[in-house]
Amino acid sequence: MMKVTLIGAGNLATQLGKSLHRAGVEICQVFSRTEESARTLAGLLDADWLTDVSRLRSDADIYVLSVKDSVLCRLIPEVCKGRGDKLFLHTAGSMPMRCFEGQARHYGVLYPMQTFSKKHEVCFADIPVFIEGNTQETEEQIRSFARRLSRRIFSLSSSDRQYLHLAAVWACNFTNYCYGVASKLLSEHGIPFDVMLPLIDETTRKIHKSAPAEAQTGPAVRGDRNVMRRQLALMDGRSDLQELYRLISAGIGEEASATHAAPDEESH
Amino acid sequence: MMKVTLIGAGNLATQLGKSLHRAGVEICQVFSRTEESARTLAGLLDADWLTDVSRLRSDADIYVLSVKDSVLCRLIPEVCKGRGDKLFLHTAGSMPMRCFEGQARHYGVLYPMQTFSKKHEVCFADIPVFIEGNTQETEEQIRSFARRLSRRIFSLSSSDRQYLHLAAVWACNFTNYCYGVASKLLSEHGIPFDVMLPLIDETTRKIHKSAPAEAQTGPAVRGDRNVMRRQLALMDGRSDLQELYRLISAGIGEEASATHAAPDEESH
Repeated sequence: MMKVTLIGAGNLATQLGKSLHRAGVEICQVFSRTEESARTLAGLLDADWLTDVSRLRSDADIYVLSVKDSVLCRLIPEVCKGRGDKLFLHTAGSMPMRCFEGQARHYGVLYPMQTFSKKHEVCFADIPVFIEGNTQETEEQIRSFARRLSRRIFSLSSSDRQYLHLAAVWACNFTNYCYGVASKLLSEHGIPFDVMLPLIDETTRKIHKSAPAEAQTGPAVRGDRNVMRRQLALMDGRSDLQELYRLISAGIGEEASATHAAPDEESH
Repeated sequence: MMKVTLIGAGNLATQLGKSLHRAGVEICQVFSRTEESARTLAGLLDADWLTDVSRLRSDADIYVLSVKDSVLCRLIPEVCKGRGDKLFLHTAGSMPMRCFEGQARHYGVLYPMQTFSKKHEVCFADIPVFIEGNTQETEEQIRSFARRLSRRIFSLSSSDRQYLHLAAVWACNFTNYCYGVASKLLSEHGIPFDVMLPLIDETTRKIHKSAPAEAQTGPAVRGDRNVMRRQLALMDGRSDLQELYRLISAGIGEEASATHAAPDEESH
């Protein structure tokens, strides 16, 4: 039976640990600097917990580090030392595989493309998982481990993974920022945010079927300068939003003229 | 039985016409400057079609104008003239109700908050519909008409409707632009866009339950300057995207410090 120790007890570690546990993987230990986090997750996974990395045992086959980027580099030497036959993985989108270099013989990356929260269960099986190993043999070992989690496994280099992570910032964090601006505009005029949800759901649904550039609608893709001028005026006193509105509208306009694609939609 | 004539045969008019037809409303005529559009929609609705507005009949109770903003003002006098007892509605988010002023006695706005395409069926019943009438009596008449379409009807002034429309641009068009940037970054590195879909779906799903500011994740809300610096470097040669990245990240950072809310998530 495969044995895993989790370094980190945050959102990703929590969902990863639960999915592994459900898949029949034994979780040996859960480490977190925060006792409550370590204890809580370990409790869910029938594992031991620790807050002092020097108490880490060597009975696991795989050590998975799911911690903040800034903590990762500091923890790697302590976790790898004296465990030369083990496999070490991190789960960070923006950290290269080589941060294990000189610290371990078998190492790599397992990066799931999803946003995680502790409380909110996710179905790992559908999450694309991007893997990388320091040798072909290690990568195959990581692949068979990843298969316990997901059906969608891709090999990806550290270099390309950076762009994947950047794309996720645009697709997730920056779209969420746009929702936030919409929410603020509505609340200032007494309109509940939930009137936007059918529109948001439909926008999301459309890109399951069409490329984003083809699905684009609204004043910018129509080149409707009157509407754009009036909308800019509505944000008077918010020069930051006006600047974003100008830049994004220009980007949409350029994209439309570059693709020569007639917009598919007429309203919004 | 209520009779409606549609002025316009675009995406919104198509979906509106079909929903009215299903609800048992008789559609008398469909006008479009484009013969094919008029003929196609009229065919679906068992209605007559016309491309010459002077051939408009006066047998409808309600005339709904769903045309481009730039065309609306020009068409209103021609449509309203000699039909003083009729009700006239437009469906434009950014046009005030007063564009009917002096042209009609009974008029108003019916603005459905959704993005429409001709081919893609929508369930009108769940779409929030925003109405406005030039008198209280007219508004009640519009409300009972709107009830045939949707369960979610709100009264909204022309002034506030502008902000609703602006919010829709942020929540729909600008998020779609972000998807487009993500798509481009991925394709440049040989990664298929559909690996983003679980993340995008989850991001959308979260704002059904949490306010956008509370749901925010990623380097900007964590204040992770190292990641942000590296990500900016990945967009070298795309100063437009770098500028957007800086502005949106700054916006996310300010929002986080303003709300003092601890981010709910740790990884994307």
